[in-house]
Amino acid sequence: MSKIKFGIAGVGTIGSMHLDNIVRCLDKAEVTAVADIRLNLVKELAEKYKIKRVYSDYKELAEDNSIDAVIIALPNYLHYDSIKAFIESEKHIFCEKPMAITLEQANEIVKIVRESGLKFQVGYQRRFDKAYVRAKKFIIEGKIGLPLLARSNTRDPEPPVGWEKYPQKSGGPFLTTCTHDFDSLRWLIGAEVRKVYAVGKFLVNEDLKNLGFYDNVMVLLEFENGVIAEVDASVNCSYGYDVRTEIFGTKGAIRIEIDKATGILEFGNNGVVHDYPKWFIDRFLDAYINEIREFVKAIISDKEPPVTVEDGRAAVEIAVAAQISASKKVPIRLPL
Amino acid sequence: MSKIKFGIAGVGTIGSMHLDNIVRCLDKAEVTAVADIRLNLVKELAEKYKIKRVYSDYKELAEDNSIDAVIIALPNYLHYDSIKAFIESEKHIFCEKPMAITLEQANEIVKIVRESGLKFQVGYQRRFDKAYVRAKKFIIEGKIGLPLLARSNTRDPEPPVGWEKYPQKSGGPFLTTCTHDFDSLRWLIGAEVRKVYAVGKFLVNEDLKNLGFYDNVMVLLEFENGVIAEVDASVNCSYGYDVRTEIFGTKGAIRIEIDKATGILEFGNNGVVHDYPKWFIDRFLDAYINEIREFVKAIISDKEPPVTVEDGRAAVEIAVAAQISASKKVPIRLPL
Amino acid sequence: MSKIKFGIAGVGTIGSMHLDNIVRCLDKAEVTAVADIRLNLVKELAEKYKIKRVYSDYKELAEDNSIDAVIIALPNYLHYDSIKAFIESEKHIFCEKPMAITLEQANEIVKIVRESGLKFQVGYQRRFDKAYVRAKKFIIEGKIGLPLLARSNTRDPEPPVGWEKYPQKSGGPFLTTCTHDFDSLRWLIGAEVRKVYAVGKFLVNEDLKNLGFYDNVMVLLEFENGVIAEVDASVNCSYGYDVRTEIFGTKGAIRIEIDKATGILEFGNNGVVHDYPKWFIDRFLDAYINEIREFVKAIISDKEPPVTVEDGRAAVEIAVAAQISASKKVPIRLPL
Amino acid sequence: MSKIKFGIAGVGTIGSMHLDNIVRCLDKAEVTAVADIRLNLVKELAEKYKIKRVYSDYKELAEDNSIDAVIIALPNYLHYDSIKAFIESEKHIFCEKPMAITLEQANEIVKIVRESGLKFQVGYQRRFDKAYVRAKKFIIEGKIGLPLLARSNTRDPEPPVGWEKYPQKSGGPFLTTCTHDFDSLRWLIGAEVRKVYAVGKFLVNEDLKNLGFYDNVMVLLEFENGVIAEVDASVNCSYGYDVRTEIFGTKGAIRIEIDKATGILEFGNNGVVHDYPKWFIDRFLDAYINEIREFVKAIISDKEPPVTVEDGRAAVEIAVAAQISASKKVPIRLPL
Repeated sequence: MSKIKFGIAGVGTIGSMHLDNIVRCLDKAEVTAVADIRLNLVKELAEKYKIKRVYSDYKELAEDNSIDAVIIALPNYLHYDSIKAFIESEKHIFCEKPMAITLEQANEIVKIVRESGLKFQVGYQRRFDKAYVRAKKFIIEGKIGLPLLARSNTRDPEPPVGWEKYPQKSGGPFLTTCTHDFDSLRWLIGAEVRKVYAVGKFLVNEDLKNLGFYDNVMVLLEFENGVIAEVDASVNCSYGYDVRTEIFGTKGAIRIEIDKATGILEFGNNGVVHDYPKWFIDRFLDAYINEIREFVKAIISDKEPPVTVEDGRAAVEIAVAAQISASKKVPIRLPL
Repeated sequence: MSKIKFGIAGVGTIGSMHLDNIVRCLDKAEVTAVADIRLNLVKELAEKYKIKRVYSDYKELAEDNSIDAVIIALPNYLHYDSIKAFIESEKHIFCEKPMAITLEQANEIVKIVRESGLKFQVGYQRRFDKAYVRAKKFIIEGKIGLPLLARSNTRDPEPPVGWEKYPQKSGGPFLTTCTHDFDSLRWLIGAEVRKVYAVGKFLVNEDLKNLGFYDNVMVLLEFENGVIAEVDASVNCSYGYDVRTEIFGTKGAIRIEIDKATGILEFGNNGVVHDYPKWFIDRFLDAYINEIREFVKAIISDKEPPVTVEDGRAAVEIAVAAQISASKKVPIRLPL
Repeated sequence: MSKIKFGIAGVGTIGSMHLDNIVRCLDKAEVTAVADIRLNLVKELAEKYKIKRVYSDYKELAEDNSIDAVIIALPNYLHYDSIKAFIESEKHIFCEKPMAITLEQANEIVKIVRESGLKFQVGYQRRFDKAYVRAKKFIIEGKIGLPLLARSNTRDPEPPVGWEKYPQKSGGPFLTTCTHDFDSLRWLIGAEVRKVYAVGKFLVNEDLKNLGFYDNVMVLLEFENGVIAEVDASVNCSYGYDVRTEIFGTKGAIRIEIDKATGILEFGNNGVVHDYPKWFIDRFLDAYINEIREFVKAIISDKEPPVTVEDGRAAVEIAVAAQISASKKVPIRLPL
Repeated sequence: MSKIKFGIAGVGTIGSMHLDNIVRCLDKAEVTAVADIRLNLVKELAEKYKIKRVYSDYKELAEDNSIDAVIIALPNYLHYDSIKAFIESEKHIFCEKPMAITLEQANEIVKIVRESGLKFQVGYQRRFDKAYVRAKKFIIEGKIGLPLLARSNTRDPEPPVGWEKYPQKSGGPFLTTCTHDFDSLRWLIGAEVRKVYAVGKFLVNEDLKNLGFYDNVMVLLEFENGVIAEVDASVNCSYGYDVRTEIFGTKGAIRIEIDKATGILEFGNNGVVHDYPKWFIDRFLDAYINEIREFVKAIISDKEPPVTVEDGRAAVEIAVAAQISASKKVPIRLPL
């Protein structure tokens, strides 16, 4: 069987990582075209990975009929338009999260994806991380009983740069960052969110404040099955990349902790030290590879991809509700 | 110097633990009188610890002029009346938390305590636990920089029994349980709470539901300095007594974790196992001893006790706001 | 029933700790006499604990017919003589480890103890520590299968002081320190040692070298059932009191780790820090209380105490073999 | 610059892993020829990785002048002969550990390698693992002071299979397994071993016993600088792949612990569980990649490789001394 031919739209940190992952690790997929407005960058990568077709615009990629599928790793505000273009040109789509920055866009994307019959997966890679997979299995097997309380956090060591720091382009912290936690919790708990209360603060970064991007946020979620969950995010995590998720139930609990970088323990003057947690690609590299592998499988075997367009929409909806809540300072009911 | 003579009002689990602690561990204090409506129980303890004066009513204890100070370990709904009685009879007071079950009572207590000039301390023992003390030191030394986010939880292995399960007697979960977390956070963060949003659920225990006692709650707090904090509590913690507190700041973070019962690791068929976390008196026994030791020091040296009547009032106020928020389903501003 | 009346011979660190433990924690025992050559010290303690009979010599204590049992916490080189004196005067004996500093003494002690019919227990308190108890239970239940390999270490933060640093008085590191590990391994593995190979070094402390006291030692033990075990000890442990024991078997393993002082985690500039392990009395306080409680039970119920005179002898024999091995630089077969 | 052309001799588990690593991860090297007596296997791999030259014998590989360097991943007993053949045909050599199974072979290899001027590196990959690298750095920076005691273990989940279980082919446990620990300790401690005492046992595997392959061993090493170290190995590690190394010094200690497979914690009926340690390629994959990368760098920049032929010889010498010691049951002095 011939390999699935991928085009990659956007070759920044995430896009070029997907490129490298497909080349190095996937047997049943290859990258045959790349597009990025930064033409020098994209040409350099094309040379390194021996990719023949290079474009400076995702629309040209959409018109390339030799490719079967695309990975959208463009700035968030371009997701909606590019999805439309790729759907029109009948490409299967793997879209980075969030799939859209407004609920209207998200609703429209659900509609056109479902009408097209094409495969569509959203890049919530935590679902493919072995710790999260193990947690899900543990929960499904009933080992924690009925879920009651949950907590999930994503704390970044650096504030956003480039387009990401403009809320109108990235969607702000609830869409860029917290949607990971929203998606993980929906998946692990197996239920929908019915109410959202969010608080956003400008505590550290003056320039983010000027742009209206909260540097620290906390969200309280109520699920339809009664579970109450907390989500928080920060761009000021001095000690590394701190991602943790905890689900507490009637029979037990599961905590996905920060991975240590190594299993080393240093016994010295200041107590026992173990080393820094990992940064995000280090932390989730295997998950990033696995999610594309699963997407390729879904295409080949004509099955529903594991993170659906409706999942993508649900995470956007919670994030939008959080934005409204943080702004109006009241709890917001879902569905919006 | 002669020892401080203590009377103990209420000799249930906590009252009899304080009794034992004073007898076994305190050089500068002794227990000379005990009172409890359960006359058999109190007589038994008096015999065991060779205490001469035994009463079936705290009011009789108040009238006993031979004692210098009292520990109030009565049901919460009797705190207010008993404090008034002990203040009138000029006893120094160590009162278990919460010091009152309404804000009106708390306000009145602040007033009469301050007018009396007597020593008054509230039983938030976590402030005397070595992990919490170390965390406070770490924060004061600036090692985490400016606090940004916080989380604190108290999950009990058993639902409340006796008077505790009646919200009108105990104050419900926000007052009986979460005030520990509220007090710890106020103390560690060094700032006041300005807004409270709380969610309470009846998810597991049918009889608690019938009494109006939430079995699982989550609270979101906003502090005057911008810190956002989450607090949760449960009465359904199957795996032990789960108390943790985490403060995240611009330069680092501190996490007070569940103590392991022992340092043992078992490598077997199901992975690596370490043993159950401790139950509440095991977990905090040293802290319970230390808090009384500090109270005795405050009396002897005529200093302000370390957990003041205003601290006690502040925790009650946050808890009352949480109750209102959970009931009205809106965020509540402080001061009330 | 009246309480068992204890005399304590030697009120240094360990002796005064036993005194405090009995007074504070034991219902069925009391201390009625104390003896120590340091008369000021013993008088001070007698006053503090309201003990009437005070002696400057353990022989006077032996002649005191009002006591039922003694705790021998004298320097090691006095154990043999004092045991003889207490056996003659028909006291039950709890003797600190090692029970003797030569094998000849140990053999003689076994003989006179068994002829006397008196209760005799040796102070290997680790057998009463909850981590070691749990490990023993785990092994007995077959959870690690057949034991194959083992390791145990005792690393002290400070070099020995006073009589302890003279090998002819304390017995040197194999008797003062490693007998803890030898006893723990015999007990956990449930078998006897058949061969010993030991290496002793003078690496750090010049004055210990001059006295012939190895500062760092390592011992390899072969058990009759084939288990091979390593034991090491150091007097140069800069980071605290490091005691660990590990048993590895066909179905699993158990590791008794250093207890953290608290469950705190500090995330800062240098990685994640947790705090110092505890010092020896902190580490084993409960075990020290439990061992005396069990000894009292053995007296009252006329049962064999849990650490027998033969256990005490076996640990001495292994230590003596280690001394010979380290000195002659060859492996030594047991029994000697 | 053109890439270093590699031939791989032996494509079993380790050889095929090196192949995959070079293809996937190394920019400056490529595999252009493979040899293995299992012709079907080697053809399959050649097809998968698009390698043109395929041989059934390492001697043919030696005669292939188009390659610059070889990786020897043949059975241990073929290392000596194949090294000679590759030296004669002027290939740089990366040889899996142990580089020889007798000291005579090892001495001869040192001689011919040094005469040839070719690059030669031995496959002690732990030196390239980030935990071991960090430990080395910590030690070099003086953070543990002077090393005093050390321990290192390698416990395999499965007994050896194929040629590995024949001591005359693999060298037995001291050469196949413990040389990893011997090399790590020499490197971390920065000193040579002067005395070896080893014990080997047949405790579990009847067929290994019949072949004379100890299933459980323990070794005690004395270093020239006074450090005493323990090494143990087992083929009966039911719970995974247990590799740990600990160096204890005057100012602190470092412990390289078992990596958890994930950072997950499960709080359930039996305590807190974390998941299985990793298997050996999972544990050391990055190290295996790094060692080849460093070997390639040494070739390109004409520098001494980081694990020299003398390092390889030293590990063989310690292992041979351990064999003799275990057999004669006496300590053995080095150099032999």
